[in-house]
Amino acid sequence: MSVVIAGSIALDDITTVKGSVTGIPGGSALYCAVAASLYSEVFLVSIAGDDFPADVIDFLGKRRVNTDNLTIVPDGKTFHWGTCYEPDMHNRTPVRRDLNVSVDFNPRLTAEAAQARCVFLANLEPENQIRVLDQAENPRFVALDTMKCYIKSDPGGLKSVIQRVDILFINDAEARQLADCNDTLTAAHILSEMGPDYVIVKKGEHGSFACADGVFFTIPAYPLDDVTDPTGAGDSYAGAAMGFLAGHHTVTPDTVKSAMVHGTVVASFCVEDFGIESMRNITPADIRIRKDHLRSITSF
Amino acid sequence: MSVVIAGSIALDDITTVKGSVTGIPGGSALYCAVAASLYSEVFLVSIAGDDFPADVIDFLGKRRVNTDNLTIVPDGKTFHWGTCYEPDMHNRTPVRRDLNVSVDFNPRLTAEAAQARCVFLANLEPENQIRVLDQAENPRFVALDTMKCYIKSDPGGLKSVIQRVDILFINDAEARQLADCNDTLTAAHILSEMGPDYVIVKKGEHGSFACADGVFFTIPAYPLDDVTDPTGAGDSYAGAAMGFLAGHHTVTPDTVKSAMVHGTVVASFCVEDFGIESMRNITPADIRIRKDHLRSITSF
Repeated sequence: MSVVIAGSIALDDITTVKGSVTGIPGGSALYCAVAASLYSEVFLVSIAGDDFPADVIDFLGKRRVNTDNLTIVPDGKTFHWGTCYEPDMHNRTPVRRDLNVSVDFNPRLTAEAAQARCVFLANLEPENQIRVLDQAENPRFVALDTMKCYIKSDPGGLKSVIQRVDILFINDAEARQLADCNDTLTAAHILSEMGPDYVIVKKGEHGSFACADGVFFTIPAYPLDDVTDPTGAGDSYAGAAMGFLAGHHTVTPDTVKSAMVHGTVVASFCVEDFGIESMRNITPADIRIRKDHLRSITSF
Repeated sequence: MSVVIAGSIALDDITTVKGSVTGIPGGSALYCAVAASLYSEVFLVSIAGDDFPADVIDFLGKRRVNTDNLTIVPDGKTFHWGTCYEPDMHNRTPVRRDLNVSVDFNPRLTAEAAQARCVFLANLEPENQIRVLDQAENPRFVALDTMKCYIKSDPGGLKSVIQRVDILFINDAEARQLADCNDTLTAAHILSEMGPDYVIVKKGEHGSFACADGVFFTIPAYPLDDVTDPTGAGDSYAGAAMGFLAGHHTVTPDTVKSAMVHGTVVASFCVEDFGIESMRNITPADIRIRKDHLRSITSF
């Protein structure tokens, strides 16, 4: 099964204690697509300006990522985002958010993309998440991720999409915000009652957990001594998990658990360098080694 | 093997979103001793006033906790501590800290306690931790826990005790504070180089991890929908872990891993009620059920 991934494409300015980069390729859809393409074919649905590097689009093509649904606006400028992380690599201060061509995004799926059986609505305005979902002709499973700004700007739209998805990926702080609840686990249960079969809560360096009717699974993050840039960790986690599920054709408690393990491992590679750099050359053997290590340091 | 547990005994005023209690028995040594006594014989080393409830001391006696090293000061008032937790059950505001008889604490171990092979220096002034350790005649393994106020008030004293212990238990924020480092994992490695064979970092609702030379193990917290009072979670975790190790006569990567699992489970009972209430009646079967459940929700 192939997976449609709709989200943002951006150029990012990022500062962490490890350094500073300017205008590097990023955005939820890019991180997700690169991660998902390790496991399945991907249709990338997004918008960028013609300042977006052509070599990244070439790289995506070589990685089974179909970019027919990536609109490149001639003479347009790509969404430009910037942030500065505090030394804890968690709290951050926004430094730039130029929406540019992304304000005109009106996703149109090609006939081929509309037939994909798996749809992932990555971080994007709920309005555009709905547009993508409405064009999917026969999805077997649909997942969604979201973030603070959309919970604040369009909670109604967001909840109406959440009702229609099988899997909700969400950060812990955002889960508590959306559920209006102080406890993360209770928040996940509340969100689960909004419709999704599985709620997967991402807790950054503290790992993730999934809850569903009668199902619970929890996994720590892969331990890393050397994080360079946490940007995209959540997107690559969700992208890898969705790619894994699409590659395995089915969503069961066991495949969701395995998908979370793969999400954890791929996200651990993502944060070892700025942007998508360290995800470019991951091999199945790299993934297997970290997966086995993760099992050995968690099993008892 | 029996375990000496030295720490504070207190009367606590606690407010959480679940309610308020006043003057309930608490303190690091009490939580630790109750938890450890599930696994081994305990010598409790502490000080209290004669306002400390006699029925709690009777209860300890019935639980293999020897209280010959618990000084009860006639007409003295027990250390009185109070805190108010925010709805997140994590951040808290101190409301009371009357040291009372605890300022005169000068621990003296009975001949029998001095022979114990296992020593746990729970939260206590480093000066008194050293006094206890100096009286232990033939300890096979020694562990230490500490907290923010002692890291601030006596970092030198604290580091000199840490050099002499086999296991350091410490909270994540305190590990970063003591190691002067923003990253928790790196902080644990720095602390490990100060002398302990094992550094066990407690992360509250996010679980715990242990690192040692060539060894790493990580375990999530036991998931609970209903936390009443987080007070003593870290103490009961460490107490159960130390009791488990004393009961198993050896400190190896495998026994440390099992000790952490038992610490996790016992701490999960601790937080389900105020004070030590919910730890009073835990049975081996209760522990086994949660341990098996923890394994089932973490294994892959």
